[in-house]
Order: sequence, then structure tokens, then C-alpha cells
Amino acid sequence: MDSGVSVARQRPPAAAAPDFERWARGELAAVEQALDTWVPADAPAGLGEAMRYGVLDGGKRLRPLLVLAACDAVDGERGAAMRAAVAVELIHAYSLVHDDMPCMDNDVLRRGKPTVHVRYGQAQAMLAGDAMQALAFEVLTPLPGESPAPEGSAGLAPALQARLVALLARAAGHAGMAGGQAIDLASIGQRLSEAQLRDMHRRKTGALLQASVLMGAACGAAPAPVQAALGDYGGAVGLAFQVVDDILDCTQASETLGKTAGKDQEYDKPTYVSLLGLDGARREAEALRRQAHAALARSGLGDAAALLALLADKVVEREN
Amino acid sequence: MDSGVSVARQRPPAAAAPDFERWARGELAAVEQALDTWVPADAPAGLGEAMRYGVLDGGKRLRPLLVLAACDAVDGERGAAMRAAVAVELIHAYSLVHDDMPCMDNDVLRRGKPTVHVRYGQAQAMLAGDAMQALAFEVLTPLPGESPAPEGSAGLAPALQARLVALLARAAGHAGMAGGQAIDLASIGQRLSEAQLRDMHRRKTGALLQASVLMGAACGAAPAPVQAALGDYGGAVGLAFQVVDDILDCTQASETLGKTAGKDQEYDKPTYVSLLGLDGARREAEALRRQAHAALARSGLGDAAALLALLADKVVEREN
Repeated sequence: MDSGVSVARQRPPAAAAPDFERWARGELAAVEQALDTWVPADAPAGLGEAMRYGVLDGGKRLRPLLVLAACDAVDGERGAAMRAAVAVELIHAYSLVHDDMPCMDNDVLRRGKPTVHVRYGQAQAMLAGDAMQALAFEVLTPLPGESPAPEGSAGLAPALQARLVALLARAAGHAGMAGGQAIDLASIGQRLSEAQLRDMHRRKTGALLQASVLMGAACGAAPAPVQAALGDYGGAVGLAFQVVDDILDCTQASETLGKTAGKDQEYDKPTYVSLLGLDGARREAEALRRQAHAALARSGLGDAAALLALLADKVVEREN
Repeated sequence: MDSGVSVARQRPPAAAAPDFERWARGELAAVEQALDTWVPADAPAGLGEAMRYGVLDGGKRLRPLLVLAACDAVDGERGAAMRAAVAVELIHAYSLVHDDMPCMDNDVLRRGKPTVHVRYGQAQAMLAGDAMQALAFEVLTPLPGESPAPEGSAGLAPALQARLVALLARAAGHAGMAGGQAIDLASIGQRLSEAQLRDMHRRKTGALLQASVLMGAACGAAPAPVQAALGDYGGAVGLAFQVVDDILDCTQASETLGKTAGKDQEYDKPTYVSLLGLDGARREAEALRRQAHAALARSGLGDAAALLALLADKVVEREN
């Protein structure tokens, strides 16, 4: 038997493999359009301008892509998923606006541009972040007759609205992102164990990435075991993202990252690199990639989860 | 005919008039208990402590009382209303935590205690406020089997959860409270027209007070015209509250207010007093009280709205 043929048989035919880049380009354009529709230009006294500056025209939009790929995997309501994608990106963007402020990370550069507080002042930056968090929950709960009403008002049943709010609020709040940031603040100059570091990152970064997957999955009618497997996938991808972030912070230049590099070491923050070394951190990222793929295999979704599998690879292989 | 008898006939019997103080004492104790249950002590790295400091043991709890009185007026689901009461108070409390920070009003005294940023630092104060906003939406969307599950998980149907989130998020966000604060920031040292001042206050303070009434009303099955009349009542009470706030800021001592008095004049902020004078502002508050009562009369709720009527009086007559 020709081993080349054997290998070819084990692979799905090339036509069945999704063209990831093409899919991502299309979805990113749709997400940008939805954000542009939803984030108001006319909020009073410059607030809308600061909100739009903080969220439009920048960012990898990884969380929206996770929402949309998970929805795709379970054949869910795409319109509902687009609202979820906008909402989760608003929460992510608000957290960056607040995180960059002088009393937190005091960062002046984000996505290659001056940060919101540098551009609009601290008070407006704080308000813009606050309003972006509220807007996330507005987007998930459309009111009858309200405009703008882009695609997705239909198919967003009240029970799904409530479920999406529940997932997003918990990922954003004290048990998730905000709690992780509090640990982060308290850990400067401290030596954390690997378990403590993992707990911090699972909350600070992982919770919102995992919620992205769960929100996308909630837009379909997948059985509980499938949703649980997707949750495991989201947890592994979420942690992998932060491990890679730690690696990039000490291996890449600021121009590549679009934000100030080397901040972790400057602020004496515990990271996967400081704990495990660069090689150890890279091994950890690979292990999490394998966990993500194993969770997708457990989900039984097969080819339907191909985009999620590719997203896990992109998270680990990214260079900024 | 004896005119004394005639007057007695026109009034409801004394026993039918609600004992406002007794009702308020009972409800305030229940709200305090619910807040204590819901605001976590165990959030990581001191975040829970800062959140609890920012919301427990202080404040007039006017918004929760409006929620509960409105629910009472339409014979709504009390457990659902208690969750709404906690949620709206969390939004109010977070806005005070952020508003007091150095980049905003730079206030060191609130409810007679050092403000959150003075006690816990600016970074923790910002995070605590952020987590309080998220927690408000967590409280409105209980997950099955989640603890704590105080009274009120039953009766909170998904459609009601979605409706409460929609009302609260819009009142908190760019079109409501956050938008009003942005106008407030931009108006320092400016001369506003009465219409501009009213718009600012309707957003900054009025939106959340009006939402409190609407959220309470949503817990019952009142017809749309009744809900609309209650919305008008909430709008008038919300604006009256701010007019009285402006009056108290220049007539009361810091000890009575539990916060620094005279800040409006010090910061050259436009207020109802600076625009209309003290007597003019008092007339405006009385006019809004009459509007509130007229809206209750339009609601057709009769005696069922007695607590709301008394709350409008308390808002106008308060001394701190």
C-alpha cells in the first residue's frame, strides 16, 4: 500500500476543510459593521466618540470569532450570535479602557494608538468604559420597535437573552474578569504558585473567552454534554491565550504587539514565563492546544467544529 | 350637615392609610439582607470587601423602595422585585464609587465614611465599581441551582429577566446615567439653559429612579397605560430628587448630608439653584411633586399607589 494514499485517506478531502482566512475575513467585516451600528455616535458630550474610539477599528476580535464559530458548530441562530459577539467584544474593550488607566496599568499605547484616557482624559475614559459595559447588556436585550435593530432581533427569544446575559455578566464580574484583575493587582512583586497563576489567568482572561464559546453554543440547541465539551474547549483556549500573551510580552517588540511590550517584567508581574521559563511556557501552550482539540473530539461535533479547531491553533501560533 | 363629618367621609379611614415608616423600615431591612446575601464576601484579593464597603450599611435606598412600592402597587411578584431592587441599588452604588474618584468629583467622604478609593485605592475602587455593575445583571439572571438563591428565583420568568435587564442597562448606559455624567463633566463652568439642565438631570439621576419604578411595575401584569403613567410618575420623582439635591447641597451642612456639601458651587456646576435661585428651585420641586401625584391619579391605581404617593412626598421633603 502506498503510504501517501493512506495519509490522504485519513484526511478529509481538501474541499471540506474550511477556508479559515476567508471565513474570518467575512466574519470580521460583519462584526465591525455590527459594532459600528451599535456603538452610538450621538451619545452626549463626547461620550459616544470616546466609546467608539475604544472599540472600533482595532483588535483581533478573537472573542466575536469564538462566539460565531461556536454558533456555527451547533448550527445556532446567527443573528443572536452576532449580538452576543458584539456584547462580548464591548466587555473586552471596556476592560482594556479601564485597565490602561493611570491607576491600573498606566499604559499610553493600545492597538497602535494612544489609549482612551490619553486621548479623552481619565474621567471620560472611565465613563466610556462604564457605558460600554451597560451597552453590552443593552445589545443582548432588544426592546420592541427600538432602533438600531440590525440582524438578530428575530431568533433572540427571551430565554436566550436571559441565558446570554447570565453567562456574560458572570464572566465579566467578581468571579471572572474583574476578580482576576484584582488578583493581578495584588500579585505585583509576589511569587505565585502555578495553581495560583492559573487561577488568576482563568478569571482575568479565560472566563470571557470561555463565555464567548458558551454564548455561541447557547444560540443553538446542543445537548448538555456537547455544551460541556465546548466549555472545556473554551477553558483551554482561554488559558492558552494568556500563556501566549505572556510569551509575546517578552519576545515581541511593541510595534508588533500594538501595545507596550515588556510591561510584565517592568512591573514585576508573575507570568508563565517567569514561572516556567520561555520553553516551559511554550510547552504549556502546546499542552493546552491539545486539551482544546481533545475537548472538540469529545463533543462529537466532528467537521462542524473545524473552525473552532483552527481558532485554537491560531491562538497558540499567533505572533501578536 | 356637619362639615367635620363631611371631611371625614371624603378621606379614607385612618386604618387604610399605609403606615409608611413601618413599611419602609421592614423593606429596608429586607433590602439590606438581600444585598448582604448577594454581594460576595469571598471575591478574590480584597475585591469583595471593597464591593461590600461600597454598597452595604449606607444610603437611603430610595431606588429599592421605589421598585418595591411600584411592585406593590401592581400586585407584582415580590421576589422578582427584590432582585430588581438589589440590582438597581448596585448600579447606583457603583456609580457613586466611580463618581467619587479623583479623576471625577474627587470626593473623600460618602455616607459619612471615607470613599472607596480613599479606603482601598483607586485601582480597587474602579474594579469594585466594574464588578458591581456586572453583579447587578447577574442578580437579574439567576442560573439553575446556583447559590446564593434567596427569595425571588421563583417568579422570575426568562421574559421578566430580559425585560428587567433591558430597563436597567438602558438607564445605566450612554442614554441614561453615564450620558448624564458626561454632560455633567462637560458643563463645569458653563451656563446651561433650563432645558439643558433638565436633560442632564433626567439622564444622570432621573433615568435610574424612573427605571426603578418601571422595573417594579414590570414585576406585575399591569396594562400598558398603567405602566406609562407609572413611568411618568418615575420621571417626575427622578427629576424632583435632583432638584432637591441641588437645594440641599447649598443649604445643608456636610454632617447632615453625609457627604461634602457646597461642592456644586465650589466646582462651578450649573444647578437648579444657580439657574432659578433657591425659591425658584423649591417651586420647581413642588411642581414636580404635583406632576408625580397627577401621574398616579392617571394610573387609576387608587389606594394601591398610596406608598408611591408618599415616596414622592418624602423625596421632596427630605433633608439629606
